[in-house]
Order: sequence, then structure tokens, then C-alpha cells
Amino acid sequence: MRIAVDAMGGDRAPDEMVKGCVEALNAFKDHDIEIILVGQQQVIDNLLQDYDYDKSRLHIEDALEVISNDEKPVNAIKKKRNSSMMVGLQLLKEKKTEAFISAGNTGALMAGALLKVGRIEGIDRPALAPIIPTVKGASLLVDAGANIGCKAEHLMQFAVMGSVYMEKVLNIPSPRVGLVNVGEEETKGNDIIQEAYTLIKATHLNFIGNIEARDIPAGKADVIVCDGFVGNVILKLLEGIASSLFEILKQDILKSWRAKLGALLLMPTLKGLMKEWDYAEYGGALLLGIDGLIIKAHGSSDASAIKNAIKQAEIFVSKDVLSQIRNEIVMVEDKSNEQ
Amino acid sequence: MRIAVDAMGGDRAPDEMVKGCVEALNAFKDHDIEIILVGQQQVIDNLLQDYDYDKSRLHIEDALEVISNDEKPVNAIKKKRNSSMMVGLQLLKEKKTEAFISAGNTGALMAGALLKVGRIEGIDRPALAPIIPTVKGASLLVDAGANIGCKAEHLMQFAVMGSVYMEKVLNIPSPRVGLVNVGEEETKGNDIIQEAYTLIKATHLNFIGNIEARDIPAGKADVIVCDGFVGNVILKLLEGIASSLFEILKQDILKSWRAKLGALLLMPTLKGLMKEWDYAEYGGALLLGIDGLIIKAHGSSDASAIKNAIKQAEIFVSKDVLSQIRNEIVMVEDKSNEQ
Repeated sequence: MRIAVDAMGGDRAPDEMVKGCVEALNAFKDHDIEIILVGQQQVIDNLLQDYDYDKSRLHIEDALEVISNDEKPVNAIKKKRNSSMMVGLQLLKEKKTEAFISAGNTGALMAGALLKVGRIEGIDRPALAPIIPTVKGASLLVDAGANIGCKAEHLMQFAVMGSVYMEKVLNIPSPRVGLVNVGEEETKGNDIIQEAYTLIKATHLNFIGNIEARDIPAGKADVIVCDGFVGNVILKLLEGIASSLFEILKQDILKSWRAKLGALLLMPTLKGLMKEWDYAEYGGALLLGIDGLIIKAHGSSDASAIKNAIKQAEIFVSKDVLSQIRNEIVMVEDKSNEQ
Repeated sequence: MRIAVDAMGGDRAPDEMVKGCVEALNAFKDHDIEIILVGQQQVIDNLLQDYDYDKSRLHIEDALEVISNDEKPVNAIKKKRNSSMMVGLQLLKEKKTEAFISAGNTGALMAGALLKVGRIEGIDRPALAPIIPTVKGASLLVDAGANIGCKAEHLMQFAVMGSVYMEKVLNIPSPRVGLVNVGEEETKGNDIIQEAYTLIKATHLNFIGNIEARDIPAGKADVIVCDGFVGNVILKLLEGIASSLFEILKQDILKSWRAKLGALLLMPTLKGLMKEWDYAEYGGALLLGIDGLIIKAHGSSDASAIKNAIKQAEIFVSKDVLSQIRNEIVMVEDKSNEQ
């Protein structure tokens, strides 16, 4: 299979993007993967000179322009048709690649994906769906920021897509779906949330009802459904608090010799914990609902994160996640039309 | 000064409420504090038999009914006029106490406060404002759940009240006010957030603009402004993730002898960190915008949390926080009328 990677998107592009692709090819030698690096050919060629890899498995698709992180999404995708992001999406549209990975401007990627690739039939609003670490392993957060305001049906569709993802990709039978709210009772929250509760309850999903934010890190739900504003707050707070807690711990440890010695002994365990909570380990977030496999890698992705995103893309392609979502959403709609 | 405490509200009432009051009286022997325990006289009397304390400083106000956590706020306050919560609020209204503390039903406390005590002139929506721990110390979160939907003006008023709180109560000169959004740019978020940005910018506050959720634990802002839904998610996620991280750490530590020894040496430091991140240490959340000092203690408050809330109430009273907010909100409104 072919996987295209945006060489120019992300805080650490192009160096770490190129390095990540080479590392993936070398790590997954026996996998059926070819990589297409999309971006400025000369820049990529120069970077590739430093590495040893199987040249028959790495291709470059030249794209002169770069969409930066501070550009307005709609302007960017209209004006920069020759950007690495838009060229990569074009490859996906023309089925010249099975998946596309970018660590670039999230808004532009979503807008470009809608324009070039389009939505899965029956899905009104695609969502950004990252995996987040929990006490019990991992949960899927839908939506993590693609849709600032959502209607109840959108939230219901997030629930359906998220459930398929967790069941098919992470092999969780009958994933527990939770709706983020300010309390567990059915009557909590605003009208939209209450309507979404009713809609999700009417599906065949394993809906465990409203969950409070404290239930998220405890791993109470496999699929965490919320609008993009709330999801963005959840995702960024999770990132922020983990690093802040370790920061405080470090400051405290430096205050005593006993603590310093303890920390030294505990270091491998702490490093393991840091790794468990490191987003790079989980690859990227799928643009759930787009009719093509697009993975948004974290903006600060390094080579290791890109390598993991490539591995993740391979799983999405081999499990044919898109067809599964298509089938599932048709089923839910047929059922609700019957009622 | 007199401080009334709801003896019957909270998961660990009445035992821990009564114990906390006794502990406060004994700990603050030289302070000018008298406590009024509001609740079922006989129950309270029985509990008090176990303790030694200065009986002249502790009074009981009999209240037969109890509002539970799962009751609908508006029903509860209408039907249970003789509940400990409503009787406590009545004491505040009649100026028989300078402050009222309850760990009971948050919605009922806010609804009851609006009915009995009313709002500060110029404030449309009172907010729940807890202190949250950060790398740099502590920030104020407004609103943490009183208002599920907010208009731009409400968010502006939260900013004004929060700034006064941090300046007067925690002695932070020119507190940095941040608006929670999905990105730092002025154009991010929905219409309400963008309008709130403009309104807060027009005040004399030290407005640092939009903040992302990852900036919260890093302590980027002293006052964190958001609507009650988002604030509730932030508060509960902070609670949840801290305990979940320690849970995972504990599981990991048990896996190796080296880690166990390290953890043993590090224990005092870890316990210190747990204490820093323990909400009980920060007392409770002020109902900011109510024209009387009402502190909502955490539902799971123990005696120590109640003792801290009493100490906090003493500070609010002695610094006359209410007058400060009244003056400040008039100033902002005069200024915006001029424009």
C-alpha cells in the first residue's frame, strides 16, 4: 500500500517528517508499504542524502508551496493549491495513495479534506478523533476540535464513527460510548446535549450515558463524545497537566537529597509513565467522517511520532475502517427512519 | 465575625462538617470567629458530644430538612424551605451571619442564593469560582459550572469579578486574565467568545487574550474565564487526571523492587505534591456575584476541607471582597457607558 506524508507541515518539518518516513521504511521492512513524501523536491532530496533506505519504496511528489500554521484555513486552501497539503489530498482523491498524513495546520487539513475528498455519505460533520491515554489503556475523543459548535445529530454521528473505530481498529468488543456532560443525570446540560443523549440512546451502540470529565482519565468510556470546543479543551488540558505535574515533581525533587535518590531509582518507571502519556506514541488523529484516510499528526510531531502515524495508517488501510464506518452509519440511519 | 456552616450538605455530612467546625474553632483560637452549625439540632448535638471546644463560640440553628445531591435545584429550594441550606441562606440574608459555607447540592445552593440573597448590582449571572492549583501556584476558574450557557457580557463580568478576587484575596497585583479558547488568535472560537474578547479587552483589566487549555496548569493566567460547561469540564478533568496519573504510577511502581525503593524515598515529596493538588487545601469556591459571601465546598469535603473553607470565609469577610466587586463592576459599567 502507498502512504503519503506531508513533508512540510508541522513545527519540526521538514527534517523530522523526512526522518520519520525513513525510520518507518527501515523499521517495517517486511511490510507492504511505500511512502510518498509530498513537498519541495529539492529540500527533501537534500535531507534524504543523510539516510540509508530502500529507494524503491520512497517516492517524492513535488509541491512548491507550504501552508503555515497561522494561516486562515479557507484562504490557505484556496490560494495555495500547490501546497504540500493540497497536493497530498489530491493524491488521495485520485487514489494514488491509500492514506495521507500531515502534521500541518489542522483547520486547513480539514477544510482541504472536505473540498478535495468529501464526506462519507450520511455524515454531516467530520471530526478530529485522537486516541488519549487513560488508566485502563486508551480512549477515543470525538470531536477534538474540528467543529466548534455541534448539533445533536452531529454528536450522534461522532458516537457511531467512534464506536466503529474502537471496535475495528483497537479490537474492543462493544465499545462503551459516553457523552461528556456536567453531570450523569439525563436532564443535565443544554438542549443540544439532552437531544444527543436521546439520539445516541436510540442507536444499537453500547451507550453508557453521560460521563463527567473526571471519568475520562479513569477510562470509564472507550469513546468520548463531545463538541469540538469541549474536546479541544479536554485534549489540550490532558497534554498540559501531565507535563505540568512532572514539572512540579521535578522542582520538588530537587529540594532534598532523599528525594533525588528516590527519583534516580524511580527514573525508569517515571520514563515509562511519560511514554504512556506521550501523544507521539499514539500516532495521530483520524479525520473521522472524511471519505478517505487522513491522519492529523500532532503539530509538534518528531520522527518517532511520524513513524507511529505511518504504522497507524497501515492498520486503518488493512482493516478497511472506512467501509466499516460507511456500513454502520447506513444501518443507524435506516433504523432511525423506521422509527 | 459569624460564619454559618451547612451541617447536612455534602457526601460526608454531617460527621465531617461538624468535626471540621470544631477543628476550625480549636485551630483558630485567637481569631474573632463564631460558628453557626445549621441542621438537625439533635444530630449535631450528638456528634458534638465527642469533642472538646469553646461552647460559647459554637451555635446551632435548627433546620429539619435536608436537600440531597440528586434533587432538582428549583424543586428542592421551593419545597424544602426548612432545609439546612435554605435556613443558612436566610441567616445570611438577615445578616445574622457574615458568610455561609455548604458542601451540598451546587445547583440548589446557587438557586437558593439567587432567591434569598440576590445578585450584586450590575452582575447578570453569578458564577462558581474555585481556586485551581498550577505550576506557578494557583489560578481562579470562573465559571466552574453555575452557567451552562453564557453571553459575552457574562464572560466579561466573570473577568472583572475574578480579577478583583485574585487582587484583593490572593494579593496578586494586576492579575492576568485569560479567556479559554481553542487557539490564541483573536479570530478563534464562536461568536460569543469573540465578542467576549472584545468586551474584556475594552476594560482596564490586565487581559492577556485567549488561552488554550494547556496554558491552564502552566499558570499562564491568574483568572481563567469560560462558560460553566467548559469550566466544569476543566475542573473535573483536573481532579480526574491527577488521581489517575498517581494510580498508574502506583501500578507501575509495584512492578519492580528498584521502583518500590525509589518510591519509598520519594514518598514525602509525592505526598507534598498530592497535597498541593488536593482541592481540600484550597477550601471551596465562592459564589462570585451573589450579594453575600457563600462558599461552595467540594461535595466530598472532609473535616480538613471544611476547616480550610472557614479560614477562607474569614479572609473574604475581613478583606470585604463584596464591596470591592461592587465598586469594580460599577467602574467598568461607567466606562463602557462613556464609550
